[in-house]
Amino acid sequence: MIDANRLRTFTEQIFVAIGCSEADARLSADVLISADLRGVDSHGVARLPGYIRLYDHGRLNPQPRIRVVHETPSTAVVDGDRGLGLVVGPAAMQIAIEKARVAGTGWVAVRNSNHFGIAGYHALLATEHDMIGQAMTHAAPLVAPTFSLEKMLGTNPIAVAVPALTEPPFLADFASTAVAYGKLEILQRKGQPAPIGWAQAADGGPTTDSNAVKNGGALLPLGSDREHGSHKGYGLGAIVDIFSGVLSGANYGPWVPPFATAGFMQADEGVGIGTGHFFGAMRIDAFRPADDFKAHMDTWIQRFRSAKAVEGQRVLVPGDPERAMEAERLVTGIPVLEPVIKSLDELGERFGVRL
Amino acid sequence: MIDANRLRTFTEQIFVAIGCSEADARLSADVLISADLRGVDSHGVARLPGYIRLYDHGRLNPQPRIRVVHETPSTAVVDGDRGLGLVVGPAAMQIAIEKARVAGTGWVAVRNSNHFGIAGYHALLATEHDMIGQAMTHAAPLVAPTFSLEKMLGTNPIAVAVPALTEPPFLADFASTAVAYGKLEILQRKGQPAPIGWAQAADGGPTTDSNAVKNGGALLPLGSDREHGSHKGYGLGAIVDIFSGVLSGANYGPWVPPFATAGFMQADEGVGIGTGHFFGAMRIDAFRPADDFKAHMDTWIQRFRSAKAVEGQRVLVPGDPERAMEAERLVTGIPVLEPVIKSLDELGERFGVRL
Repeated sequence: MIDANRLRTFTEQIFVAIGCSEADARLSADVLISADLRGVDSHGVARLPGYIRLYDHGRLNPQPRIRVVHETPSTAVVDGDRGLGLVVGPAAMQIAIEKARVAGTGWVAVRNSNHFGIAGYHALLATEHDMIGQAMTHAAPLVAPTFSLEKMLGTNPIAVAVPALTEPPFLADFASTAVAYGKLEILQRKGQPAPIGWAQAADGGPTTDSNAVKNGGALLPLGSDREHGSHKGYGLGAIVDIFSGVLSGANYGPWVPPFATAGFMQADEGVGIGTGHFFGAMRIDAFRPADDFKAHMDTWIQRFRSAKAVEGQRVLVPGDPERAMEAERLVTGIPVLEPVIKSLDELGERFGVRL
Repeated sequence: MIDANRLRTFTEQIFVAIGCSEADARLSADVLISADLRGVDSHGVARLPGYIRLYDHGRLNPQPRIRVVHETPSTAVVDGDRGLGLVVGPAAMQIAIEKARVAGTGWVAVRNSNHFGIAGYHALLATEHDMIGQAMTHAAPLVAPTFSLEKMLGTNPIAVAVPALTEPPFLADFASTAVAYGKLEILQRKGQPAPIGWAQAADGGPTTDSNAVKNGGALLPLGSDREHGSHKGYGLGAIVDIFSGVLSGANYGPWVPPFATAGFMQADEGVGIGTGHFFGAMRIDAFRPADDFKAHMDTWIQRFRSAKAVEGQRVLVPGDPERAMEAERLVTGIPVLEPVIKSLDELGERFGVRL
């Protein structure tokens, strides 16, 4: 277990060491540590070495000039200037929030960015202003559409955050796949098989091989197979890809560049500029008085949470499990796996920073 | 097989017979026949007797005054005045389109409506104006959230339509459940079991009973079970419910009134006004030049359609199967089941209209 603040300070110092401003380093660390606190370990400090590899490959600009390249009263397209998605995301969300103040809603498509951490972090920013927040991003292809042998889409998550009055915000934040790739990685490490419906084999058939994605297979869309609605998960992932990539002028589909590998795609191989995201902010009182809405959200949340449940279980409201995890890990610290600690120590050594 | 135009004329005449204007009757028939043509038989003329039952129960106003009750440059709340959702939907979408012309995007929450037919019909309206269209609606509770024994959400569909240049529009239109209830009804009629993962039994456990929903069970969210991401389908259905119900001032969750049963909920039992929907229109050139975007959509569509596929299958783009069905049924006519024909004949007899 490592104390969250110790991880936070270390992460900030690493980002400063590659040339980020103090403010950008602080924000980026906050996005990553927030993932660790909420139990989304795959999107936290475990990714720090990946961002540094991006920097080493010349794909990350530590001092980006993030700018609006096109706008209307309720929309903007933002060029992230190859900045950290962890910084570009909140900047774009802030523009969406400002648009919503004036026009009722704000919608920002982003290109020329890279991995932005957990989508929920960005969506939640809007709730502080009595707005509903939305954040989505595409990612490098790991997912086979229904009947496809090729990987065509990323895990393409979508997050929607809705403020309530006395209850904490509703926060749905989920990938458009049956499971995150991180869940297969956990089974790989343990040498255990995966449930049918998480991945497909190289021939497109069902498999329990937790290494299937590496062995020519692919992750499956939410729904797993045609009979259980995989075409719906594919549709959802496709919408995220079109909003994040085609609307913004970024790459899309199989052309989305990988997060941080050596064999990354050259700029001139793509169909657009870098990785894209899409953000939305809707002012509650552009629809009905904010306190009125938020009181009804309390009713919604309390009614769902009190639904009669299967024995031994409870019905949760989206956001509940992550919030409970955060409360726990703020006290206990964050369990960081040995290989992750090793990779962080290597970074520390390289940049003269101590974990 | 019944010719589409014969069904269309009959449906129009029935709506006129209950007091709808010629224009509203024509539009309503178009929404229903469009569902039949695209193969979504559960949302076509089979529903006509249900709308008439709504009318008989005093829950349907054939001459509604549809009005904007609140607005900002990019948003509006519309009161449907208990009109046919088939009419309220396109009216609200038109307001979203007008907002988008000026503000870049338009977002309309609707209350005091009822069943609006297929979501895709409404979303597609935006594409004729070089806009991306979105339509969603909640519905009466049939679905159990993850670990719930109670039915708390409807099948809550979402549709997103995106225009392309030479290709027909991308159209994703799907319920947030593993399957539509209509698929269980087909198996009920045949006396056949359902695949595991479509519904849960009264105790919340897995079942192959195609009558499970009637026998105290429930439909399952997209993802089917916790291990395969049912909490994601639940999250998606919840978002649709909050946008359609809580934002608009309609009912929500378990309080959403049933489509057209005798045992409908009294107005004073609810938490809002009638059934709700949510619509969005985003002007493409609020983000990038429309022809530029649409050319990239052609590339997106062609790349996905040409993905290497499982033997004997093709990778489809959302909207492909329904378009193929429409082309076929315009020629062959629409296969209407015997019980549906009988119920239409009864309506015809009552109103002096011949099918």
